[in-house]
Amino acid sequence: MNARSGRTVRRPALGAGELFVRLRPHLRALDRFVRAQLDCFEPEIRAPVAYCVDVSGKRLRPSLVFLSGWRGAGRVAPPLVRAAAIVEMVHLATLVHDDIMDGAELRRSLPTAARRYGSDAAVLTGDALLAHAVHLSAQFPSSEVCRVVAAATRRVCAGEVAQTLRRGDTSITLADYRRIVDLKTAELFQLSCRLGSSLAGFEAAFVTAAAAFGRHLGIAYQIYDDLADFFGEEKQVGKTLGTDLAGGKLTLPLLMLLPKLPGAERARLLAEIRTGRKPAVGRRRAQMTELGVFGDVVGYIQDELVAANANLRPWRRLAAAGLLARLGELLRDQLDGLQHGASD
Amino acid sequence: MNARSGRTVRRPALGAGELFVRLRPHLRALDRFVRAQLDCFEPEIRAPVAYCVDVSGKRLRPSLVFLSGWRGAGRVAPPLVRAAAIVEMVHLATLVHDDIMDGAELRRSLPTAARRYGSDAAVLTGDALLAHAVHLSAQFPSSEVCRVVAAATRRVCAGEVAQTLRRGDTSITLADYRRIVDLKTAELFQLSCRLGSSLAGFEAAFVTAAAAFGRHLGIAYQIYDDLADFFGEEKQVGKTLGTDLAGGKLTLPLLMLLPKLPGAERARLLAEIRTGRKPAVGRRRAQMTELGVFGDVVGYIQDELVAANANLRPWRRLAAAGLLARLGELLRDQLDGLQHGASD
Repeated sequence: MNARSGRTVRRPALGAGELFVRLRPHLRALDRFVRAQLDCFEPEIRAPVAYCVDVSGKRLRPSLVFLSGWRGAGRVAPPLVRAAAIVEMVHLATLVHDDIMDGAELRRSLPTAARRYGSDAAVLTGDALLAHAVHLSAQFPSSEVCRVVAAATRRVCAGEVAQTLRRGDTSITLADYRRIVDLKTAELFQLSCRLGSSLAGFEAAFVTAAAAFGRHLGIAYQIYDDLADFFGEEKQVGKTLGTDLAGGKLTLPLLMLLPKLPGAERARLLAEIRTGRKPAVGRRRAQMTELGVFGDVVGYIQDELVAANANLRPWRRLAAAGLLARLGELLRDQLDGLQHGASD
Repeated sequence: MNARSGRTVRRPALGAGELFVRLRPHLRALDRFVRAQLDCFEPEIRAPVAYCVDVSGKRLRPSLVFLSGWRGAGRVAPPLVRAAAIVEMVHLATLVHDDIMDGAELRRSLPTAARRYGSDAAVLTGDALLAHAVHLSAQFPSSEVCRVVAAATRRVCAGEVAQTLRRGDTSITLADYRRIVDLKTAELFQLSCRLGSSLAGFEAAFVTAAAAFGRHLGIAYQIYDDLADFFGEEKQVGKTLGTDLAGGKLTLPLLMLLPKLPGAERARLLAEIRTGRKPAVGRRRAQMTELGVFGDVVGYIQDELVAANANLRPWRRLAAAGLLARLGELLRDQLDGLQHGASD
């Protein structure tokens, strides 16, 4: 009841700010933990490792660990902090190697580690982060953590291989794309949710549900990211738009655009993908809007978000499930932002 | 007793050929196992992974696993085969990344993976090998394997960092060198012996002894390798001699040569190390022989071999200990070969 008007009001959903406030002590504990780990790295590599950690940005995967294992505000559980550090380090290791291979200059509007410290230091930073993540995993009393981290890491590497070594390959199908996204992104999302929920001691059925939520959310997030590469704002994305097209990556927006283009135009786009030369990013963006591709991709993302949420429905009594669902809604909000940008 | 002469003869030490005959079924089982693992890698990366495995050469670390866990000829134990694959994969992962950073053209007289498949594929091959090694480690029932593999991998990566990022650094001390060798080489040698002996079910004291043997053998082997970079035969070493000097690596032979050189000559060598320009390999080799550096380095290696063997002395009743000692003798034989070359 609203005391002043006397009308019944729906309790407002948790805002992005409020979700962040709840996560803050956990993310701070993560920062402290990771900073303390820096001493475990060789002196020669501490600067690039620290740099990678500092520019890492959103800490989405650690947030998934903390939310999946949510047992109430203010209780920061050391095993969750360690698990959050593990998934973030695996993620950062793949980013730093990715940036070398893509020859990327910027990440989150700052020079990449490869650009700043050289590619040798970047190769070694990735290796050291990966090795340290596994080392942290092996320190849990149960060998299960090591097992799931190792399995996920293997699959993330497989995703990197499929993505990087098929740059410029125009024979990629929707199934190939889906598989690459599942390996390179969704795998770590599901791992984050699995580790958070299981280390918090939730029952096995919720662990399975949280992991399935994470996998779908990861797919949704990656497709959103691929769409934002065409429709985002450079300032927000933190890198030049159209880098996927320029890098010969056949992402979902392009895969869905191709069959809708007339023959000559399709041939031109295929040549852009193959060679990475003179990608007509603005033109492709306009075509995606005109031909309804933008809407189709948004639909694809929304379907994944619905599929993600379906896993949480039986668990609404758990605060963890409610918070995870809220994180899914934040992605939906971001998608709305893209849509407004696209219709401008 | 020799039946024909009637004289008592000392049983001849196991020759290199005989040691190899004993190891053969184990190394063949390893090859089969590794080949079967290729299917676990993404199709795009199977060729470079298979190439790395094929050119891997001596399989010294797997041999240490099999010999440390020796329970009699002909008994090929699956856990040892798996452990041998793990140490070899970690080793190959570091080699393939090393070769990218060193810009190496040849390894074992064949083009490096980076040269043949490009550096992107090489970065990914290293990552995938490392991830797969950890994945195999996590499949043992005991979490101990994962723990020791993760700890060793972390230390091997630290060794790579210290070595690569201090190329051209003339402030490296004997203690720094020793530490780098301990991390980048001896660590995997000790891990191999630890895994072999513990998985074979030997008592903890022997596991400790075998690991200590492995650590000293690894140091001896690395110093031998550093000496062979000046005194080996190119055909046998499989790469151009003097690559360490050209790559700015301040190895033991150079560390011991420096203080013995007159001022101007020392300054010239320091400049060669710093810049890698016009390394006078032949001249340094001659100086090492004349100034007794060669002999000093050989003495250093022999001391390590003595220290290695001392760990096995209480365990001579075990066939495993005898075989490990024999492997140490083979390194001594190889060292004799270098000495003959040096005195020619």
